[in-house]
Amino acid sequence: MSIKDGWFSETEVLWPGQKFSLEVKEVLFHERSDFQDVLVFDSVHYGKVLVLDGVIQLTERDECSYQEMLTHIPCFAQGHPKKVLIVGGGDGGVLREIARHPGVETIHMCEIDSMVCEVSKRFEFCTASAFGDARLKLVHEDAAEFVKKEGNNGYDVIIVDSSDPVGPAETLFQPSFYQNMKQALAPMGVIATQGECLWLHLPLITTVLRACAEIFGSVDYAFTTVPSYPSGQIGFVLASVEERDLSTPASTPNAAMTEVLRYYSPEVHQAAFVLPVFAEKEIAGVRRRSSKE
Amino acid sequence: MSIKDGWFSETEVLWPGQKFSLEVKEVLFHERSDFQDVLVFDSVHYGKVLVLDGVIQLTERDECSYQEMLTHIPCFAQGHPKKVLIVGGGDGGVLREIARHPGVETIHMCEIDSMVCEVSKRFEFCTASAFGDARLKLVHEDAAEFVKKEGNNGYDVIIVDSSDPVGPAETLFQPSFYQNMKQALAPMGVIATQGECLWLHLPLITTVLRACAEIFGSVDYAFTTVPSYPSGQIGFVLASVEERDLSTPASTPNAAMTEVLRYYSPEVHQAAFVLPVFAEKEIAGVRRRSSKE
Repeated sequence: MSIKDGWFSETEVLWPGQKFSLEVKEVLFHERSDFQDVLVFDSVHYGKVLVLDGVIQLTERDECSYQEMLTHIPCFAQGHPKKVLIVGGGDGGVLREIARHPGVETIHMCEIDSMVCEVSKRFEFCTASAFGDARLKLVHEDAAEFVKKEGNNGYDVIIVDSSDPVGPAETLFQPSFYQNMKQALAPMGVIATQGECLWLHLPLITTVLRACAEIFGSVDYAFTTVPSYPSGQIGFVLASVEERDLSTPASTPNAAMTEVLRYYSPEVHQAAFVLPVFAEKEIAGVRRRSSKE
Repeated sequence: MSIKDGWFSETEVLWPGQKFSLEVKEVLFHERSDFQDVLVFDSVHYGKVLVLDGVIQLTERDECSYQEMLTHIPCFAQGHPKKVLIVGGGDGGVLREIARHPGVETIHMCEIDSMVCEVSKRFEFCTASAFGDARLKLVHEDAAEFVKKEGNNGYDVIIVDSSDPVGPAETLFQPSFYQNMKQALAPMGVIATQGECLWLHLPLITTVLRACAEIFGSVDYAFTTVPSYPSGQIGFVLASVEERDLSTPASTPNAAMTEVLRYYSPEVHQAAFVLPVFAEKEIAGVRRRSSKE
């Protein structure tokens, strides 16, 4: 276990030479599921923490940024989603945010590892509030297979809340998975996927964007700040069947949502697509933005 | 020393319960100056690293974000600075960026600790390239006293590149220091100061902004991402004598600058002022933006 002298430390091949650590109050759960190592601990300053295969997936202190941005950017870029698919996201955070959209009628969620959903509910993570939503159909299957199978389902939005491309999420970074997601989208449908970190994984990001540009009408990249993620930020790959401007919201949060959102606003949506020069130089050539800009 | 088993770890009272660590290749320097503990090491993946009183000040891998944003936001918000004062910034990074502005005629720099400038030059940090600039007048004095003394100097831009408000930089977070900076500014002058982290220090930030709003015509806040800083980001307090929109550049980088900038662009300038909702809610009431917006 990566806990020593009261501190959990994250070490990973994907970010060598750097390490983020959190002070542990109490280890609540540690088991191996059929797919990965699952650790839950209560921290001194970050609330409860979920760790999969040694990598922090969420802390209650800063999860709002990731969940809100990964969910609301594609939903408001699409405008009025009715049918949504969540791939992964077993902690329930993306589900919680999707459930805030009153126009959503159907939520499919495919999380390969049921243990992740179970610990999220059992330890009452703040992300677990919407598992009882009547619109939800939750299955525990391989998402690559599920998306292929549901190919004519006509989703308005597909959100891929995956772990990193080592371990169970590896297939979710392959072009064939993106191709199958496109088939599963309705006209005007939008996808958003966990897109790693500009400061760490620019070559991987440009590879994924280049592959997407062969498949989708528009492909773009946005990022947000998450202190407990490697290098303090994470990005998202956005894509749509038709050519459109994903950086401009097609609709905005209603009053009830505006009341509860802690990170996302229409202004934050647009600013998230503005990349630092070192990243813009690499990404400008591989994304696919509306020709209207 | 905070190096153990080949890793440097940062622990600080200002961000309890979390810790960032870098793998060390070689310790190059470790002495106590008249003011603080000064450590320089070469890291495995972040280039050379400067640490003051146990806190990372810069790594060569990500310093561009901090130096460019702290320098170019006030310079381009002002438009055409000729006379600039740098407070702190002993590593030379802000100086390097100021020196890129062809219109700048005079650069005063007041760094209390000469040892910081010396190690930056001696270990050939990538930030140390402009100490030979003919426009530079460098003094090693207490900046609070210096700014009081130079009160009628008419600086177009003052940049405060300080460490945190514990130790030698404590006075640089006091209202009296801001009052003295205002006296030292030319009409249309702009200041930018190191403004800590939205995720960690929102109460401190709002206190500083509230104090500044009593003193300046406009006060605003912007932030940037820096992986090796606590929680992966840092912000800046911007203020100007007159009421103006600091978030919109009044001029833009020329071709030579555009060639070398790695983080700053006019688009990044504007996006840096768009704050996450949790911060916007606190800051909207205390900043002072142009009434034209």
